Amino acid sequence: MPRTSNGRERLVQAGVELFSQRPYGSIGVAELCAHAGVNKGSFYYFFPSKEALALAVIDHHWTWQQGVWAGILDDPGTILERLRALFAATTKMQVDARVGTGWVTGCLFGNLALEVSSQNEPVRLRLEKIFDEQIDMIRSALAAAVASGELDRPADDVDGAARAIVAQLEGLVLFAKVFNDPSQLDALWQNSLRLLGPTPSPTR
Amino acid sequence: MPRTSNGRERLVQAGVELFSQRPYGSIGVAELCAHAGVNKGSFYYFFPSKEALALAVIDHHWTWQQGVWAGILDDPGTILERLRALFAATTKMQVDARVGTGWVTGCLFGNLALEVSSQNEPVRLRLEKIFDEQIDMIRSALAAAVASGELDRPADDVDGAARAIVAQLEGLVLFAKVFNDPSQLDALWQNSLRLLGPTPSPTR
Repeated sequence: MPRTSNGRERLVQAGVELFSQRPYGSIGVAELCAHAGVNKGSFYYFFPSKEALALAVIDHHWTWQQGVWAGILDDPGTILERLRALFAATTKMQVDARVGTGWVTGCLFGNLALEVSSQNEPVRLRLEKIFDEQIDMIRSALAAAVASGELDRPADDVDGAARAIVAQLEGLVLFAKVFNDPSQLDALWQNSLRLLGPTPSPTR
Repeated sequence: MPRTSNGRERLVQAGVELFSQRPYGSIGVAELCAHAGVNKGSFYYFFPSKEALALAVIDHHWTWQQGVWAGILDDPGTILERLRALFAATTKMQVDARVGTGWVTGCLFGNLALEVSSQNEPVRLRLEKIFDEQIDMIRSALAAAVASGELDRPADDVDGAARAIVAQLEGLVLFAKVFNDPSQLDALWQNSLRLLGPTPSPTR
């Protein structure tokens, strides 16, 4: 007997795969349906529009990525070791994607941010929330490192560092995509440690 | 009497404006022609394809931006003051674009990088060259600051810092676009100074 239809899940999965690999604007409902193996009637039963699917795809991908991040940040070891492992996992994702497709695909959220966030307010707002949550996760880890004495920095001064580190991550993922070379991310940990340092005076 | 046709220049200018504001994939030859006030026959006289125009647009925009960067880096003042002025000018461009359109438009090169560089090898290669040249300009400025004693850092160690700073710039421009808020770039100078600092040991 057939199972209850999993058409919605298959459409979301098709969106994660296609939107990660190619520009959002180049992918239509017909291709999403073909990739998911569902017909157009089913698509519009689940989603009123491609944008509605995109929001579901963003939520699905963030739920997954947030779980990965939370798992790594909950691992044994010092907090800075866990952050380092988180960045290593991020680099590995870019390496793995390149092995599968021949191309560094980049960050689904970063890609959508630069392609559509000035054109599509619901998508921009969802991405804003996700970047805020990413920054919050890093901030909490840094605050815990300060509280445990692992990191010598004023406890009220980790917000800027968390933002700078997530921006550095996104900038290096952009480099990885432009240079089609995931090793661009190798500098992330050293750069993050510098971003956690005291502000140097220009001449030291 | 009519001047010699400036159709090519008008098409390139239309490309700079439209590709800066909206996704590359959403803009067709017909719209570029209408924006430039030239007919399709003229378009194909100058450019065999939209991609060919895109490459000309990228070159034109980089020639302009490179001139702006070089001018600022050649100004009076210490080298670090000039770098700071360069970043302030970059922030101002995002503020000005937002005033004109209501949206932070971001960096034309970054936008194209994340939208099309895994789909369009000629565009990716051109962007790779431009990001290399941007990094080179920052590296040269940092090397000069080391040589003049302004910056205390091993002279052979400025490459990584230059890359980290350009990545930070691109990451913060991405934040400015996601949050539709150019003030995200306000942290660029402080973060750059940190990226120029010594690598801290985790516990200090």
